[in-house]
Amino acid sequence: MTPSRGSWITLEGGDGSGKTTQANLLADWLTDAGRTVVRTREPGGSEVGQLIRDIVLHHRGDIAPRAEALLYAADRAHHVATVVRPALERGEIVLQDRYLDSSVAYQGAGRVLDGTEIRDLSLWAAEGALPDLTLLLDLDPAAARERLDSADKPFDRLEAEKAEFHGRVRDAYLALADAEPERFLVLDADSSVEDIAAAIRARVEALLS
Amino acid sequence: MTPSRGSWITLEGGDGSGKTTQANLLADWLTDAGRTVVRTREPGGSEVGQLIRDIVLHHRGDIAPRAEALLYAADRAHHVATVVRPALERGEIVLQDRYLDSSVAYQGAGRVLDGTEIRDLSLWAAEGALPDLTLLLDLDPAAARERLDSADKPFDRLEAEKAEFHGRVRDAYLALADAEPERFLVLDADSSVEDIAAAIRARVEALLS
Repeated sequence: MTPSRGSWITLEGGDGSGKTTQANLLADWLTDAGRTVVRTREPGGSEVGQLIRDIVLHHRGDIAPRAEALLYAADRAHHVATVVRPALERGEIVLQDRYLDSSVAYQGAGRVLDGTEIRDLSLWAAEGALPDLTLLLDLDPAAARERLDSADKPFDRLEAEKAEFHGRVRDAYLALADAEPERFLVLDADSSVEDIAAAIRARVEALLS
Repeated sequence: MTPSRGSWITLEGGDGSGKTTQANLLADWLTDAGRTVVRTREPGGSEVGQLIRDIVLHHRGDIAPRAEALLYAADRAHHVATVVRPALERGEIVLQDRYLDSSVAYQGAGRVLDGTEIRDLSLWAAEGALPDLTLLLDLDPAAARERLDSADKPFDRLEAEKAEFHGRVRDAYLALADAEPERFLVLDADSSVEDIAAAIRARVEALLS
């Protein structure tokens, strides 16, 4: 990445952990402070990515595990090259729902592939690009399940995976945060929305100053 | 791959080099001899692969080079896992239009990526699977262009690349054949259809006996 540029913040955590709520609050706060914020996501953060996301999430029938990993990596390669890098070069703040930590946690921990292979594949796809800050909303999987159930939201393929799987995902996320403490801010998703938002703002303020 | 199994034959070469004609003749000859032949191709040799092929070949607008490489690799991973390996395990003959040598020759030689990286990516996708025999129909790109022009066939994105690119593809193919002489049979695509077919039959007969 070029030295003089914007900032790249990713949000990670299980479904139901409050990523969207916190992203909205942070985006509003940054925008009110006069910053230009690009909200994006993976998979599906580009036009090509939406086509790929459709295959991964909505194809009837199984997709071979390596094919699935490669589709996510293809989405990442196109998204970083055409959305993230250009925004950072314009000096903007990229606020992104899920990045390579999701791939390592979900595909690596839960499936037949090794987390290190998944990470290497993602880094090749993104030419080594890593966020400046990753906000991990950490939540006990049972609590996450309750939140989703109460929202009465239909489940997609990933959401339908069983509770044991979500426990492995959480463990993988926490291991990633342990390995890169300078990049990660781990937040207890059971805290109040306002407490979490305040902790995020403090860290982002330090990042941007 | 398991030791007791079928045989896997891939056809390589530029568009207009006669791969389809030779695949048809070889498939007929094998079928007449009582063998079960699975005709397939990459990209697009599976249902998931057809969705991927649509993105790569027909998306309006550029696809980032690494994204394109990863999409081809995803197609390969799913195709090998769900079409090629099961057929080989049933003892059948898989006759396939294009495989990883196409990726190395087209993406590696002609684009911004390194051929070795493309090959490593493909081998990861396919869990190391390589064909028993690869038939390379070698043709001077200018002659290939004439054949396509006379067929008055519409060009897709790859076909629209310029002549210089096709020269580099040919060089890359010949280098791959040089590196693995036991896997490759190089055929002069300017020879008569019958001479080429006879040379292929002789080599396939040796392979199957």
